[in-house]
Amino acid sequence: MAQSEGRGAGVSRRDLLATTGGFAGGFVLGALFAGKGLPPSRAAAGDVPEWPWPYTKLDPDAVAVKAHQAFYEGGCHYAVAKAVLSELREKVGYPYTVLPYDMFRYGEGGVVGWGSLCGALNGAGVVINLVSAKPAYQQLTNEVVGWYTQAEIPHYVPQGKEPMPTSVAGSPLCHVSVSKWATASGMGAESKERAERCARLCADVARRTVELLNSKQDGTFKAAFTPAAGIKDCLSCHGKEDLNNVREIKMNCIQCHEPHT
Amino acid sequence: MAQSEGRGAGVSRRDLLATTGGFAGGFVLGALFAGKGLPPSRAAAGDVPEWPWPYTKLDPDAVAVKAHQAFYEGGCHYAVAKAVLSELREKVGYPYTVLPYDMFRYGEGGVVGWGSLCGALNGAGVVINLVSAKPAYQQLTNEVVGWYTQAEIPHYVPQGKEPMPTSVAGSPLCHVSVSKWATASGMGAESKERAERCARLCADVARRTVELLNSKQDGTFKAAFTPAAGIKDCLSCHGKEDLNNVREIKMNCIQCHEPHT
Repeated sequence: MAQSEGRGAGVSRRDLLATTGGFAGGFVLGALFAGKGLPPSRAAAGDVPEWPWPYTKLDPDAVAVKAHQAFYEGGCHYAVAKAVLSELREKVGYPYTVLPYDMFRYGEGGVVGWGSLCGALNGAGVVINLVSAKPAYQQLTNEVVGWYTQAEIPHYVPQGKEPMPTSVAGSPLCHVSVSKWATASGMGAESKERAERCARLCADVARRTVELLNSKQDGTFKAAFTPAAGIKDCLSCHGKEDLNNVREIKMNCIQCHEPHT
Repeated sequence: MAQSEGRGAGVSRRDLLATTGGFAGGFVLGALFAGKGLPPSRAAAGDVPEWPWPYTKLDPDAVAVKAHQAFYEGGCHYAVAKAVLSELREKVGYPYTVLPYDMFRYGEGGVVGWGSLCGALNGAGVVINLVSAKPAYQQLTNEVVGWYTQAEIPHYVPQGKEPMPTSVAGSPLCHVSVSKWATASGMGAESKERAERCARLCADVARRTVELLNSKQDGTFKAAFTPAAGIKDCLSCHGKEDLNNVREIKMNCIQCHEPHT
């Protein structure tokens, strides 16, 4: 028994020893309480905060202001993620205190400038998913992406500034969104104005994300987005009942493909 | 002085009191050590692990096996993120023990099925960025995305299984990648085979990500990706020196646009 008599087990261990008694019980408990045979990662497994992380209703105005500012620190993905997560860090504290916003810098310009997914939407997706299990994260993310494709943005106007020209992206892709805006506004895709347009768009996406999360928290969330009607026509040949060479996606086919019969 | 005589300050506090002496020093130190006036979020600010998080070289084979399996738990984005981060959790422990992989479920199917950015690449981007500051995360992410657009994938074959038909996506977008493969293989975009193709592709992307991170760690990283030559032609009119309605992106223009003069 001497080997199992370690320190730190306290009353409960003594109670257990009294209950189980004898050599076998002492051996098992000695192994449990010594704990030195476990690799560090196993021993630290209890540190993982349970997912989904707790959400508390946030002020959409405050989040919008933060997102606009954060765009100039770390780009679009970072901006939306930091705006929401820093508010949750203030209001909830742990576990939001352990998550570095910097891990979301890569999403800028549709992933380090590739022009793919708008980083603001990538930021919306990750914060929604951090605080929501299935099917809520799917419903809310679908809603914010769908809204983005149809909205006249940027809508946000920083205090003391003038509104900017707007456009409708029709797509969740950075390249399409930027080029539609550049064409509609007559302002350069590579210009300070375009950067400011994207900063304001981050404010819009962060606000919409928080509005949706708040409505889910209140039990008042209702899905409003309807995919472009033409997608059904395309999928009647390309979908799983016929050619089966296109998944049931939601991007609007005719932005990149000529309609044909 | 009585109010400042709390517990837990130990020798260093007594030394400081001896040095500063008198009422003023005691008051300041009392306020410091009581610590109850700080809001929870401020008090916990010290918990934030410093970014970038530590990276240690990983086994690309082990990560590939994990990514293939994890695809069936949580989709493509989750699969690549979990494969790399769970290995780091095993090898490094904290702070990897605090990050829930579930926050990356939203990226599946190009963000909850929208068909935009391939979720495997979204997973690669976030793990690279978590362990890399600028410009490393930009260089490595650009490399893995560029490689993906040109590679014959899926390359990975699970133990005891046969290789699958391959294709070259030419794009970082889920929809393009899936539809190119469905057309090349003659297998359905909505089929079990397509799911298995995406699971194997996650193994390929996770492996490539770890190979790149390992080479950066070794100091042997060299950028190899060259964007499609035709992009320059398009940007000679659409770029910042002329129309300025397209940013200097890296997706290949002619996948969606007809070449014109």
